[in-house]
Amino acid sequence: MAVQTTDSKIPRDRANDYTREMAAGRREFLEQRTGVALEHVAEHSFDPAIAQGNIENFIGVAQVPLGVAGPLLVNGEHAQGEFYVPLATAEGTLVASYNRGMRLLREAGGVTTTVMADKMQRAPAFIFESARDARDFGQWLDEHFDEIKQMAESTTRAGRLVDIEKYSASKILFCRFNYTTGDAAGQNLTGKATAVACEWIRANYPKLQHYFLESNFATDKKSSQINMLRTRGKRVVAEATIPEELVKEIMHAETELLWRARLVSNLGGFISGANNNGAHSANGITAIFIATGQDVANVAESSAAFNYGELLDSGDLYFSVTIPSLIVATYGGGTGLATQRECLELMGCYGKGKVMKFAEIIAAAVLCGELSLGSAIVAEEWVKAHDLFGRNRP
Amino acid sequence: MAVQTTDSKIPRDRANDYTREMAAGRREFLEQRTGVALEHVAEHSFDPAIAQGNIENFIGVAQVPLGVAGPLLVNGEHAQGEFYVPLATAEGTLVASYNRGMRLLREAGGVTTTVMADKMQRAPAFIFESARDARDFGQWLDEHFDEIKQMAESTTRAGRLVDIEKYSASKILFCRFNYTTGDAAGQNLTGKATAVACEWIRANYPKLQHYFLESNFATDKKSSQINMLRTRGKRVVAEATIPEELVKEIMHAETELLWRARLVSNLGGFISGANNNGAHSANGITAIFIATGQDVANVAESSAAFNYGELLDSGDLYFSVTIPSLIVATYGGGTGLATQRECLELMGCYGKGKVMKFAEIIAAAVLCGELSLGSAIVAEEWVKAHDLFGRNRP
Amino acid sequence: MAVQTTDSKIPRDRANDYTREMAAGRREFLEQRTGVALEHVAEHSFDPAIAQGNIENFIGVAQVPLGVAGPLLVNGEHAQGEFYVPLATAEGTLVASYNRGMRLLREAGGVTTTVMADKMQRAPAFIFESARDARDFGQWLDEHFDEIKQMAESTTRAGRLVDIEKYSASKILFCRFNYTTGDAAGQNLTGKATAVACEWIRANYPKLQHYFLESNFATDKKSSQINMLRTRGKRVVAEATIPEELVKEIMHAETELLWRARLVSNLGGFISGANNNGAHSANGITAIFIATGQDVANVAESSAAFNYGELLDSGDLYFSVTIPSLIVATYGGGTGLATQRECLELMGCYGKGKVMKFAEIIAAAVLCGELSLGSAIVAEEWVKAHDLFGRNRP
Amino acid sequence: MAVQTTDSKIPRDRANDYTREMAAGRREFLEQRTGVALEHVAEHSFDPAIAQGNIENFIGVAQVPLGVAGPLLVNGEHAQGEFYVPLATAEGTLVASYNRGMRLLREAGGVTTTVMADKMQRAPAFIFESARDARDFGQWLDEHFDEIKQMAESTTRAGRLVDIEKYSASKILFCRFNYTTGDAAGQNLTGKATAVACEWIRANYPKLQHYFLESNFATDKKSSQINMLRTRGKRVVAEATIPEELVKEIMHAETELLWRARLVSNLGGFISGANNNGAHSANGITAIFIATGQDVANVAESSAAFNYGELLDSGDLYFSVTIPSLIVATYGGGTGLATQRECLELMGCYGKGKVMKFAEIIAAAVLCGELSLGSAIVAEEWVKAHDLFGRNRP
Repeated sequence: MAVQTTDSKIPRDRANDYTREMAAGRREFLEQRTGVALEHVAEHSFDPAIAQGNIENFIGVAQVPLGVAGPLLVNGEHAQGEFYVPLATAEGTLVASYNRGMRLLREAGGVTTTVMADKMQRAPAFIFESARDARDFGQWLDEHFDEIKQMAESTTRAGRLVDIEKYSASKILFCRFNYTTGDAAGQNLTGKATAVACEWIRANYPKLQHYFLESNFATDKKSSQINMLRTRGKRVVAEATIPEELVKEIMHAETELLWRARLVSNLGGFISGANNNGAHSANGITAIFIATGQDVANVAESSAAFNYGELLDSGDLYFSVTIPSLIVATYGGGTGLATQRECLELMGCYGKGKVMKFAEIIAAAVLCGELSLGSAIVAEEWVKAHDLFGRNRP
Repeated sequence: MAVQTTDSKIPRDRANDYTREMAAGRREFLEQRTGVALEHVAEHSFDPAIAQGNIENFIGVAQVPLGVAGPLLVNGEHAQGEFYVPLATAEGTLVASYNRGMRLLREAGGVTTTVMADKMQRAPAFIFESARDARDFGQWLDEHFDEIKQMAESTTRAGRLVDIEKYSASKILFCRFNYTTGDAAGQNLTGKATAVACEWIRANYPKLQHYFLESNFATDKKSSQINMLRTRGKRVVAEATIPEELVKEIMHAETELLWRARLVSNLGGFISGANNNGAHSANGITAIFIATGQDVANVAESSAAFNYGELLDSGDLYFSVTIPSLIVATYGGGTGLATQRECLELMGCYGKGKVMKFAEIIAAAVLCGELSLGSAIVAEEWVKAHDLFGRNRP
Repeated sequence: MAVQTTDSKIPRDRANDYTREMAAGRREFLEQRTGVALEHVAEHSFDPAIAQGNIENFIGVAQVPLGVAGPLLVNGEHAQGEFYVPLATAEGTLVASYNRGMRLLREAGGVTTTVMADKMQRAPAFIFESARDARDFGQWLDEHFDEIKQMAESTTRAGRLVDIEKYSASKILFCRFNYTTGDAAGQNLTGKATAVACEWIRANYPKLQHYFLESNFATDKKSSQINMLRTRGKRVVAEATIPEELVKEIMHAETELLWRARLVSNLGGFISGANNNGAHSANGITAIFIATGQDVANVAESSAAFNYGELLDSGDLYFSVTIPSLIVATYGGGTGLATQRECLELMGCYGKGKVMKFAEIIAAAVLCGELSLGSAIVAEEWVKAHDLFGRNRP
Repeated sequence: MAVQTTDSKIPRDRANDYTREMAAGRREFLEQRTGVALEHVAEHSFDPAIAQGNIENFIGVAQVPLGVAGPLLVNGEHAQGEFYVPLATAEGTLVASYNRGMRLLREAGGVTTTVMADKMQRAPAFIFESARDARDFGQWLDEHFDEIKQMAESTTRAGRLVDIEKYSASKILFCRFNYTTGDAAGQNLTGKATAVACEWIRANYPKLQHYFLESNFATDKKSSQINMLRTRGKRVVAEATIPEELVKEIMHAETELLWRARLVSNLGGFISGANNNGAHSANGITAIFIATGQDVANVAESSAAFNYGELLDSGDLYFSVTIPSLIVATYGGGTGLATQRECLELMGCYGKGKVMKFAEIIAAAVLCGELSLGSAIVAEEWVKAHDLFGRNRP
């Protein structure tokens, strides 16, 4: 609701900003200015103090419905056994669809998962007087990698600078500083480390005219071919071979038709210029991200996925999904918040040493969702499923 | 946490599935199997009955921290005046950054917003014996558009079939059935309408071999060039001209440096194959989406954005952001949930006839965020801002 | 060879610029400045006068080796029967490879070809004070289409303005003026027609601030997703079903392995961000373009292609290639030059009313090349084939 | 022209296939079957024997008009001084346009050129039973790089295997075997070397299920984001700063308007999904490629280009073009053919040790063409230029 312009500054109190009183004060301020009472928003079960570092101008919480799907049977290197997966969403049928796919793959023997690569990056652009200077700088970077690595890592306990990719255009050298970041997602960690490294570079390379800490080569919060190719976060594969009878019995579909639909969808994705030739991996990823305190805006990158299948002579279907830029954390960020931590704990994924396990569980869940929606489309149950579950649609 | 495989089916009760008891029962089930107690998750202030149609296997809520930014001054066709914008996120500095950008643009006279296009689609693929049959079918579609429209619209009050785009490849005709969908986002509505239309087509066009209701031309929950070009949801532009002094005073940056950084970022985005040449539009969009009950997985599409600026001779900066596939609703889906509805009401955006206003407010907020982060990068305050606000990072 | 800077201007004589004497004079000039004699270049069999309008500063010809492949059996709507296809190239094995594919498909009953769409465009960008003005202009364009069409068509006999596609971003309206252009490729024709239309628009729409006649939405001489989607030139499909025995007998390969390779190549092309998921369509297209006087730089666009196949239960293979932006002419441009005209005549494709036939023959030839190289890769004959034919490689 | 199907096999004679008699025999054969006499095609000045390895079923030559532009002033590391550039094309105004741009840049002090990277690749895909096996194989590849390198290089004098890039998806490891290839373009050399390396891998890595020598990660004869990012052939930058007065005097345009047009074109190229945000680099590249015996189908890749400019406070314009996948040779392939060799010699670029020089000259020429067409568009001389020079257009 539009408000009057006088006295419009949102109340803030440096000393006591993260208290229930301050939150109540802000809600009152908003009510005075807009006439809207925020009652449900006020119903948070945690002390606002724990949200310091996660939010500013705190006024309460969004209560997002939480469902659970599973058990999901994972044959990973880090995740092994059955898991119940919390999904926070308001989209009817989503939990049911993932649940159904989990049943299919559990009966098929589970989902095999593999983390193929792990890197988080910050991508500064270094600008010179000429292309030749940019090229020379690239060589200098290689020669001074150890010093740069030392400077970058001086700012972080968890982060390790693994390598620096270089991409030239005009008189600019775009770089990707690739890190491993432990159990944190690492965007901030890599930002800080790279900033310090860049300052050291500026001090030691006089020919550098200017640099920008970020210039769309990382590509944080954006889908990009470079991240599909070169990985951002975890690159994870989930795969399984599904017997034809199970597809018939559980999904009321046939592997051959599922397969034909896949061929058409692959072509569709290629021509439409999509970042994903699959069905709806973003649905499961987003719902898990919200439930577990991830940086949900990373759905922009993490929604990229490559589906690949093979119809075997037996009629069984080998199917896999590759998520090239899955950005996840089990530590830091929003993972320590009240409900978020509970959801991570539900999967045994809270805290240090758990991020690979968590990445594997997500990929396994995604595979279940791909097969479930894929089957629904060919079984033409899709619309009916929405009729059954999604009752409050217009 | 991995669990034993016996007795693993999540409890369900068709008659009483959306009750506090049932939710409690499921939490107990999960605790027995995983040893993890879900206490905060249980703290929802609404009756689960309202979440029917939004979730299955309901166990409670994710409590996502909610902050507020503003006032945001919008000079839209539908949104006019100052607004306080609710942002649900766990990413420290996000609210502060948007807030700072809103201050800049308020002092610059506000953000002008325009909805350029509005269409939601479902994209069936029709498969024939030959390319020639596919081409003939395309002509038949044109000739029978009125009947198809009638069939499609028979399933919906809000939806209107506007046109059918056709894309041929091999013996397949990929179509985009474009609808306006009132105040709903419309993915389900268009799915149902198109399914009925397709059944009518199947009955009336014997040469059709098979069709799939979806084949990656819509591209639901995926970023794609086709949606960047042809619009999915709302295509919205936010634009403003910012005086150089304000940039200096509020952002501690200079328009010329901001501009130089933009040129480099534009080039970076082009080479890296990004769906967005800007800074971080996904951040604001995601936080608003969570707060207001949108389908957050649509961040995959809605994260696409085109930034375009012009440095004027005066030193002032014309700046704009175009969001080509902003998928929003003010009615249906998760918009009627407890906190979600309050957040929409806060902006006067709940219910019918409000979706254009809401799209404009989001686009305006995004522009503020682009300028804020853009300035931060050039002011090299970026890392420092994270140090100040983001205290619980590893 | 680097030359001295004095007296360096290439001789020109407006009155007699296209004579053998003038060409000889320029060669002499070059020999004096570089010490290099151009003897073979001088050996052209045609009067330079016919090249007026095709070249400036004429000094002779490039003699590009010409081979012939065929017969190619085409079951088109415009091309029917067997054709011998001239290929101008210096790449050993290329003619042999296409020839082998033509044998396969001839024995398989020929290639079915279909022109799916036909449009050539010029894409002016119209710039306004605001997005809202740009949007209003879009409506005005629709309302004044007839007048614009009349202005555009006043400049051309062959060109017809079919429609105007509109794409908005910021305060800019990017348009594609789509024409049919008869038997000419039509880039110049559409340029001239659109320029006149734009001048009329400028005179009649005072709010227009500025326009640029081209702004990378056509995208002339560039590959682009928009042309893959929306067609530039001819959109042509070539398709065939190939019996398994023929693949074994002629290609020494198996359809199933060919098919498996295709699945992997499709995935490769999707991830690598290619404009073509096939094998080497650019090879055949380029060789035909050089032979027949096409604008060879259009290989940039015309190299885009979508392969799509289906392995049938019988073991036979349905295979197709879709070329979405094949830019061809049988009239105008270089088609009337001496050898170029002969090559078009060899296929019965010179002059008016022949361009669809020519497009079909090219697409059919491309399909043969796709199957030939595809087979060679799986038959691992590929390298050996190069050893046999390509003797002068380093 | 369609022909009868009896006796349709093109004559061939293994022993004497590359003789004038055999070429005449084939032309006679074609005349009998099509009724079309090939008279101009027969007019080649070289002995067909030299084309062995370049063509099969030789019937003569395409005579492509050749013009010359220049002098082009290059300040390269390999190319220094003034050059006359041969352009083979049938597109009126092309030579004139490049010539005009060369004049502008000569008066501006010349074009600075830099080769940023040099690599040619073959991209086999290795397929395993599972993603985990594919990942393990990646590590094995690293550990056995020296042996693989030795095997690969055993087949070639000029080629050096520099590194192997790895990209995983599903149970497949896509690799790029990157080579330097001396003065050859190197596609065949790298094909042969990689084939031998792959056979060695197959023999030594039993878990490998299958491999394909090529799977659209190289992406030969296709435009792709991966080649734009990672280089294929030479990555070359050409740059210059052009005084405003020169632009006015020679191009009848203004740098500011040129600059504004560039901003709009950059945005256009981003949204349209183009492989090139510039004007028409493919024109110059193609014309030089035909003239000098390059593999012209590589225009598909080599047409990618990134333009980047900066309008200086002085009004002067810094402008650059980056060509990320320029595939060129000065030795092998078609470079030794009669007219082709003369054209290379004209620039002092024939034979060994010349390929970097040649790459620089092409990039410099491209920059001239970009500025020339860019200026023409803003000066609205474009259409008029076509009227003046391109007289035989329909």
